[in-house]
Amino acid sequence: MKSHKLLQAPIPMRWVGPLKITGETLNEKVSVPLATYEIPLWHSVGRGARVSMLTEGIRTNVIDERMTRSVLLEAEDAWAAHQALVSIKQRQPELNAVVARSSRFAQLIDMHSQVVGNLMYLRLEFTTGDASGHNMVTNAADKLIPWILAEYPQLRYSSISANYCSDKKATAVNGILGRGKYVVSEILIPRDICERRLNTTPEKVVDLNIKKNLIGTLIAGGIRSANAHYANMLLAFYLATGQDAANIIEGSQGIVHAEVRQGDLYFSCTLPNVIVGSVGNGKGIDFVEENLTRLGCKADRQPGENARRLAAICGAVVLCGELSLLSAQTNPGELMEAHIKLERS
Amino acid sequence: MKSHKLLQAPIPMRWVGPLKITGETLNEKVSVPLATYEIPLWHSVGRGARVSMLTEGIRTNVIDERMTRSVLLEAEDAWAAHQALVSIKQRQPELNAVVARSSRFAQLIDMHSQVVGNLMYLRLEFTTGDASGHNMVTNAADKLIPWILAEYPQLRYSSISANYCSDKKATAVNGILGRGKYVVSEILIPRDICERRLNTTPEKVVDLNIKKNLIGTLIAGGIRSANAHYANMLLAFYLATGQDAANIIEGSQGIVHAEVRQGDLYFSCTLPNVIVGSVGNGKGIDFVEENLTRLGCKADRQPGENARRLAAICGAVVLCGELSLLSAQTNPGELMEAHIKLERS
Amino acid sequence: MKSHKLLQAPIPMRWVGPLKITGETLNEKVSVPLATYEIPLWHSVGRGARVSMLTEGIRTNVIDERMTRSVLLEAEDAWAAHQALVSIKQRQPELNAVVARSSRFAQLIDMHSQVVGNLMYLRLEFTTGDASGHNMVTNAADKLIPWILAEYPQLRYSSISANYCSDKKATAVNGILGRGKYVVSEILIPRDICERRLNTTPEKVVDLNIKKNLIGTLIAGGIRSANAHYANMLLAFYLATGQDAANIIEGSQGIVHAEVRQGDLYFSCTLPNVIVGSVGNGKGIDFVEENLTRLGCKADRQPGENARRLAAICGAVVLCGELSLLSAQTNPGELMEAHIKLERS
Amino acid sequence: MKSHKLLQAPIPMRWVGPLKITGETLNEKVSVPLATYEIPLWHSVGRGARVSMLTEGIRTNVIDERMTRSVLLEAEDAWAAHQALVSIKQRQPELNAVVARSSRFAQLIDMHSQVVGNLMYLRLEFTTGDASGHNMVTNAADKLIPWILAEYPQLRYSSISANYCSDKKATAVNGILGRGKYVVSEILIPRDICERRLNTTPEKVVDLNIKKNLIGTLIAGGIRSANAHYANMLLAFYLATGQDAANIIEGSQGIVHAEVRQGDLYFSCTLPNVIVGSVGNGKGIDFVEENLTRLGCKADRQPGENARRLAAICGAVVLCGELSLLSAQTNPGELMEAHIKLERS
Repeated sequence: MKSHKLLQAPIPMRWVGPLKITGETLNEKVSVPLATYEIPLWHSVGRGARVSMLTEGIRTNVIDERMTRSVLLEAEDAWAAHQALVSIKQRQPELNAVVARSSRFAQLIDMHSQVVGNLMYLRLEFTTGDASGHNMVTNAADKLIPWILAEYPQLRYSSISANYCSDKKATAVNGILGRGKYVVSEILIPRDICERRLNTTPEKVVDLNIKKNLIGTLIAGGIRSANAHYANMLLAFYLATGQDAANIIEGSQGIVHAEVRQGDLYFSCTLPNVIVGSVGNGKGIDFVEENLTRLGCKADRQPGENARRLAAICGAVVLCGELSLLSAQTNPGELMEAHIKLERS
Repeated sequence: MKSHKLLQAPIPMRWVGPLKITGETLNEKVSVPLATYEIPLWHSVGRGARVSMLTEGIRTNVIDERMTRSVLLEAEDAWAAHQALVSIKQRQPELNAVVARSSRFAQLIDMHSQVVGNLMYLRLEFTTGDASGHNMVTNAADKLIPWILAEYPQLRYSSISANYCSDKKATAVNGILGRGKYVVSEILIPRDICERRLNTTPEKVVDLNIKKNLIGTLIAGGIRSANAHYANMLLAFYLATGQDAANIIEGSQGIVHAEVRQGDLYFSCTLPNVIVGSVGNGKGIDFVEENLTRLGCKADRQPGENARRLAAICGAVVLCGELSLLSAQTNPGELMEAHIKLERS
Repeated sequence: MKSHKLLQAPIPMRWVGPLKITGETLNEKVSVPLATYEIPLWHSVGRGARVSMLTEGIRTNVIDERMTRSVLLEAEDAWAAHQALVSIKQRQPELNAVVARSSRFAQLIDMHSQVVGNLMYLRLEFTTGDASGHNMVTNAADKLIPWILAEYPQLRYSSISANYCSDKKATAVNGILGRGKYVVSEILIPRDICERRLNTTPEKVVDLNIKKNLIGTLIAGGIRSANAHYANMLLAFYLATGQDAANIIEGSQGIVHAEVRQGDLYFSCTLPNVIVGSVGNGKGIDFVEENLTRLGCKADRQPGENARRLAAICGAVVLCGELSLLSAQTNPGELMEAHIKLERS
Repeated sequence: MKSHKLLQAPIPMRWVGPLKITGETLNEKVSVPLATYEIPLWHSVGRGARVSMLTEGIRTNVIDERMTRSVLLEAEDAWAAHQALVSIKQRQPELNAVVARSSRFAQLIDMHSQVVGNLMYLRLEFTTGDASGHNMVTNAADKLIPWILAEYPQLRYSSISANYCSDKKATAVNGILGRGKYVVSEILIPRDICERRLNTTPEKVVDLNIKKNLIGTLIAGGIRSANAHYANMLLAFYLATGQDAANIIEGSQGIVHAEVRQGDLYFSCTLPNVIVGSVGNGKGIDFVEENLTRLGCKADRQPGENARRLAAICGAVVLCGELSLLSAQTNPGELMEAHIKLERS
């Protein structure tokens, strides 16, 4: 590693939109930056965005938020591990006092655990203000471990992170217990918009979602991943906004649910694990700051509000891309044709 | 989408290494580019790379390769779907003749299937030369579908892609049936190197791997994902070499196996789904071409060899980062200390 | 274990039916024995059976069969393991000659494998005539291992069974690569039968299947298990016919797919892992032999045909119970009411 | 279904043991009834039991208990579903008042939920005294649904059970959120006992557990199922004690953790989902009552204590069988030899 000259990998980026977004978090028309090597993605999200403008908008909901770290401690046997866990869980205020020494923003809001033989996995769950919070929770865990070991001499250190968090791995725990923002985005698309702008019908989209996203994923041995390509939109949005894009692993685990409602299309994207922040690692780079500012996520708000806004926008972006691709796949030949046209242009 | 001005998201990038790599694919010392917002990653991989230089090297093995697309067709009932499948599978040469019209490089090498009620999921598996092959297989499927529908009028179109591929979703099928390159990287680290350079012991690394990567992932409901942070290295390497980085989803699903061998540390990273290409989408951008060239992956070789070289290098990079992080986590406090030092520097 | 007196656990059993079954394997009206502590199950399956009699029948399809055992051998490194695997797979006839010494019926039909570091998991897949084949494949593997170790001195023994089989564990591999009989059962129920006999509508059953079996299982982190209670019918049928009922673990992993077809209900149960035999362990007990005989599964047929008949009947039984429970759950209060009535009667 | 004569399926049963059991729940030597077609199972568990008698015993721990039912209700959109959930969760005492009208024993102790688009999955978690509680929680849910629908007119009924429970399906949720008794059984086996009675060494058992149960299951796409054959012991014990044996599906999902401790073998079986009761369905049959009585599980104790005792014994039984099979598999040829000998005897 002789040359430490700071290089850059300039990923192609484009602003796409505007998307019409509604809901508790924001009610605006917003354009979004997407950085990707997959050029057709811009057009895919763009088509969804245009559809959103012809409807009452994409309702976005941020219904939970937390960042997690699971520490691994060991006891002599299961009973000792269990007893310690019971006691630790009852002392949340004391733990929070320790956490407070590590950060102004981190707050321990819940704990879950698993005992495996004599091993004790303790999943610490925090709110982390406007940061996605990876370092904040590692730092908090780093402070909590010596405190716990001092209070419970029957325990000994094994690991500061034990995959029950789980960071950037395909697991079920994050969807069930929460990690990042839990975002649901929804849209109601009148039938004629569906037909004219998406070249399909509500019935065809619903049918494809069942057979591809639900059944197709199930037979693939998929784990909470009933969607076509959440990962593409998440990657592009995360890169453009300075996020730790490896968190698309858990981000990709979400479910599309669609219904025909009185002839129109109800289409929703549930994203239980959107991990984004408006401050922290990856931020501070000029273009990232500009992008976040233009997205309205650097405003003077209560801690956490800028990050929730970012998550809500992210959920809307994912919906646009998901809707567009599924629509295309209902028609034989359309997907490939679009790719060829766009990549040659 | 008024402004189509091409912007860029310049992700920080650094060359790390050299890594000492051995095996059937290459025997060289190679430095690698990593593009990431996570600054500590460079140091983490760099530490592993330095260790590799003090050993006989990281043996890399590329033991399988294929790119997949699963089409979804429907019949009236399961028997009709099954009968069609049996027949189609017997006509691989005819299918390959159709495929040949879509690409010089794509070759259908295997097919797997699932019947669910009257639904027929056909997983087409191709070699794709030096391309990762996403578009190549979509294009091939696009040609095959009309041919199949003409030959089997009992079938009708449902989707060109049906999640049994599975592209960028956390599933089990890719590890079991293959998608991308199947890479195994291995290293044997003398005990004293382990102690002096990684500040740990072979026993501690083996122990942590069992409790964190194996048991920790299992209780998290993880699916074939027994590692600490494959995703981080894959993301950085994919971005720096023009890959479709959303494929870190399946890439992150791999297993670390470590053993104490006569006092030394045997450490291996199995990566069944490394999806990389030296040509195709994302390539053609200046810095990507430069990076690939410097990695020796634009040389005049048989089709597929440049991509396999890239995959082998990727496997070695992942090993370096995985080894370094696991080693750090065996010691209380070390991880956080390193992060703080590096991010402030 | 002083008292070796042979005791018995007499599980309540009842013959339910007849079911109207059609398809390639059998076209008959068949009553079935179900042994269970869950009394309402008889009525649930019975209701489905009565519905079947009013339709063109339950079409059953047995589209694959195999029994598996995965051996675990070790090499010095991944390349040695890989090379041995490539060679072994090319010598299937030689392996079958070894297998032939262990059984008249076992035949090696395919092999799949995984390399994890230096570990080699070899999944041996056999047809086993009319036996479910657990012992037959263990015995075959027991003969193959010394042969392989003699031919490939770079390998050493680790385990005769390595969970990649997978026997009686909740995994994805069995559905993807096959284990036991792959059975699909289907029925087309006219709307008025659906309304009068099942007290529901095709639309309600389809809707519930999507929201409960597909989405509900997905959010639960389910693995290939989109059904309401396959396990109940499988347990009762396995116990009554002398099967190793612990195989309901993999048996429970299957998918219900339902559609409204021109106002009627198409309802299908896909069961990729029905593990049943008409000979072998558990058989030989008087009531088991009687049950199998009455089911027509002890007839003088080609090897394998009796077992396939049993599997087809099993698939029809599962459909009856699944259909009945889902129908009941479409109506608030109906499920509990039925339980209370039946358990008090 | 003309003949309603009550038949019986007499499954072979034997008392095995005694097992030496210690811990908070019981400290006794206990023999156990096992009903199975798999004759070698008696010997396998018996071998483990004899080993336990030569040690300080099998420590059993029952560290959690709950029975669950997930209802599915629908709102117009995600926000309405979310708002209702937030409110419902704050009204646990009111819900418990409703529950109290359905059962003397059921008590709502926790709730978890998932929102998918406009769908609301509410997982109700109860203690159920000495019953396993399937019907008790269905009955409670049946009372709660009309109450909820009356209080929250924005919701409508979809299903009384929505697979997020999850009953008898292979999922991750039960291990993570709990279902049934969470049991950990542990034993410390002196090296010489290990060698003389199990014909193996602590090192070999630990090694096999890692490679077979942990890694083998992971590559199989297994979900929280790192064991060799929990399902066999659970099936036999459940049948002999009148349990709903289809619950071996979730019961089979548990993890073996073993370590060499100063030359001896620490061996543990973690079983997060043991679903057993000493009263309720399946009970009341003569042999079941006798078996439960002989196990000391019909004594006059506080509600829940008999069921916990049963669960603790169950955990010890599973450990015996698991230990014995793993030990056998460490030696080539031993498994098959034992099967042949026992099945012919």
